Amino acid sequence: MGNTFLHRAGKDESLPPVAMGSHLDSVIQAGAFDGVVGVVGALEALYMLADEELTASIEIVIFKAEESSRFGYATMGSKLMTGSATVEQLTGAQKKGDCTFPEALRAAGYDPELAAEAIKEPGCYKAFLELHIEQGKVLYETGEQIGIVHNIAAPTRFKVITEGMADHSGATPMEFRRDALTAAAKVILAVQEAARAEARHGTVATVGVIEAEPGSINVIPGKVTLWVDLRGVKTDSVERTLKAIKEATAQVCIDDEIKVGMQMMTQDKPVALSEKLAERLGEICEEKGLRYRHMNSGAGHDTMHVAKLCPASMIFVPCKDGISHNPQEYAKIEDICAGIDVLAAMIKKLAM
Amino acid sequence: MGNTFLHRAGKDESLPPVAMGSHLDSVIQAGAFDGVVGVVGALEALYMLADEELTASIEIVIFKAEESSRFGYATMGSKLMTGSATVEQLTGAQKKGDCTFPEALRAAGYDPELAAEAIKEPGCYKAFLELHIEQGKVLYETGEQIGIVHNIAAPTRFKVITEGMADHSGATPMEFRRDALTAAAKVILAVQEAARAEARHGTVATVGVIEAEPGSINVIPGKVTLWVDLRGVKTDSVERTLKAIKEATAQVCIDDEIKVGMQMMTQDKPVALSEKLAERLGEICEEKGLRYRHMNSGAGHDTMHVAKLCPASMIFVPCKDGISHNPQEYAKIEDICAGIDVLAAMIKKLAM
Repeated sequence: MGNTFLHRAGKDESLPPVAMGSHLDSVIQAGAFDGVVGVVGALEALYMLADEELTASIEIVIFKAEESSRFGYATMGSKLMTGSATVEQLTGAQKKGDCTFPEALRAAGYDPELAAEAIKEPGCYKAFLELHIEQGKVLYETGEQIGIVHNIAAPTRFKVITEGMADHSGATPMEFRRDALTAAAKVILAVQEAARAEARHGTVATVGVIEAEPGSINVIPGKVTLWVDLRGVKTDSVERTLKAIKEATAQVCIDDEIKVGMQMMTQDKPVALSEKLAERLGEICEEKGLRYRHMNSGAGHDTMHVAKLCPASMIFVPCKDGISHNPQEYAKIEDICAGIDVLAAMIKKLAM
Repeated sequence: MGNTFLHRAGKDESLPPVAMGSHLDSVIQAGAFDGVVGVVGALEALYMLADEELTASIEIVIFKAEESSRFGYATMGSKLMTGSATVEQLTGAQKKGDCTFPEALRAAGYDPELAAEAIKEPGCYKAFLELHIEQGKVLYETGEQIGIVHNIAAPTRFKVITEGMADHSGATPMEFRRDALTAAAKVILAVQEAARAEARHGTVATVGVIEAEPGSINVIPGKVTLWVDLRGVKTDSVERTLKAIKEATAQVCIDDEIKVGMQMMTQDKPVALSEKLAERLGEICEEKGLRYRHMNSGAGHDTMHVAKLCPASMIFVPCKDGISHNPQEYAKIEDICAGIDVLAAMIKKLAM
C-alpha cells in the first residue's frame, strides 16, 4: 500500500513501540494543513525527543490515501494495515475514466496480492497518537488551542443512481420527459433535508460528486450518479438519516417514474478512542497551561482504524474559520507548536 | 470550419445552385440517424437525379459541428458559413479540460483567422432543403410519413453558476454550510418548473450538463456550473420562461446565501422557413400519395441559418417513439426512402 514507517530504536526493542503519525495525501483543491500537520508534527516531536533516552522505541507512520478523492473510499492505507478492509473491498468505485484501485497500486510499484501480509496485529504498538487540524470551527470560535478527541464520526458512503431516458432536449415536450437530473436534484435536496432533521446530533450528509450522462447541453440526462457522504458520532441518528434518504429516493422513483438505485460503499461505525489517553492528554495540557477541550471529531481519520491495534487518541489544533478541504485552510504556527508540544510530552511519558 | 461541399454542374452554371444537406457529427451516446439521414438522403437524391439534364447545378453541403456536445454552441458550421456568428463568439464555452474552439479548429487543420472569407452571401443558392428525422413523436404517433417544417425553435442557452464554500463534508455542521450543489439542485428544479408552466406553447428547458467542483465525496461542493438549453417557437413564451428562471435563481441566491451568476451563450430567435417551398412540398406529397403534416421543429437545425441565404425548407421523417440523441434512435428505411423521394422531386423541380 505504500504506508511509510520511521522507527527510532528504544533501549528495549522487545517492547511494542509508541506510535504517532498522520497522512500526506490531500483532496482536490486542498489546503496545506490537513494531514501534513500530523506528519511534520510527529517528525518535530521526534526531534524534540532526540536527546532523551527512552525505553520503548518510537515509530512514525505516514498513511497513504487517507482522503477519498480518487476512489471514494477514505483511510485506505490504515484500513489495509489494520485488516479493516481488503483490496477487493476497496475496489470498484473508481471515477469515470480512471483506473481501478489495484491498477493504481501496481502502477505505484505495490503488489495488491501481498496486501494481507502487511496487516498488523493488535498489540503491535503501545499506543498511537495523531495530531490534526480540527477541520471544524469549535476551537477557532472558543479560542482553545487543543482539542482532545473522544469519538470519531465514521462515514457511511453510498451512491444514488437515477435512470430515466436520454432524449433530445429540443424535441421532447416537458410532459414526455424522464429526466434523470431533475430526479437527482430532488435526491440532493432530500439528503440535505434528512441531515438537517438530525443536525442536533451532529449528523451531516453531503453530495460531493455528481455525474450526469451523457452530459451534453442538447440531451436530457438519462443517468445521474450521486456520491453521498453521511456522518455522525451517534449510530442511531446516522441510521435514521439513512432511512429518511432511502424513503425520499423511493418517493422520487414513484413521482418521476424513473429507476433509482442505491449502492452502499462503506458503512463504518463511530469509533470510541482511549479514555485513558484522553485523560493523560488533559493532564499534560493542564501542566502546560494550555486551554483545551474534550470533543468529538466529525471528520474521519486513520486513528479510527489504528484504534483496533492499540489505545489511540487524537490531538486537534484550531483551523481558521473551521475551513478545511479548501485552499483557504489555515492553522496558526503557535497552535501547531502547542499541539506538537503536547504530542511530544505524551510520547515521552508513554515511551519512558 | 471544414464544412464539406459537393457540386454537380448544371447546364447553366451562372445560376445559383439548388442546395441540400445536413450534418454527420453527433452527440455523445448518439443514435445513428440524426443528421446522417439528411446527408445520405442528399447523396441518394443526387444519384436518383443522375440521368436528369437539369438547368441549375446541385450542391450538397455537409455541415460540421451541428451538435453542441463539445463546445456548448450548436450549428457552428452553418453559423460561420452564413456569418451568423464569428469564431470569437463561439469561443469560451469549452468543458473543463478540453481545448478552446480555435485550438480545435487549428488541430483539425483549419485557420480560424480565415473564417470570415468562407462566409456565403444571400442569393448564393436558389433554395436549400434538409431532410431529417423528426426527433419528436408527432409523426410516429399519427402514422404520417412526412413532416413539412414551417418554423424552427431556436435555442436560448446559458450557464448558471452557483458559488458557495468548499468545506469538509464531515466537520462542517449542516447550519454552517454554503453548499453550491444543493443550491444548484433548486435551480435545476426551477428550470423544469418554468418550462412546465409554458408547456402549452411547446416551450422546453433542460439542464444537460452539470459540473460540481471540486467533485470529491468528502468536500461540500463550492462551485457548480449548469448548462441550460431553453427552446420554443414562440418568442414571448421563451422570454417568460427565461424571466421565471432568472427570478428563481435570484431567490436561490437569497435563500441559500450563495452567489449565483448567469452567462448567456446563445439567444437565437425562432426561424420561419419558406412558406412557398412548404406549399410545393405539400403538393409533391399529394402527388405521391404520401401522408404528410405541416408542423414546427422543436430541435434546431443548420437550416435555421441557411434560411438567411435563400428560401429554405425541411422534410421530416418519423423516428420510433420520438427518441433521439440516444442509441435507441431509429427510423424505418421505408420512411427515410419516402423522405428522399420527396427531396429528390423537390430538387428536380427547382433545378429544372
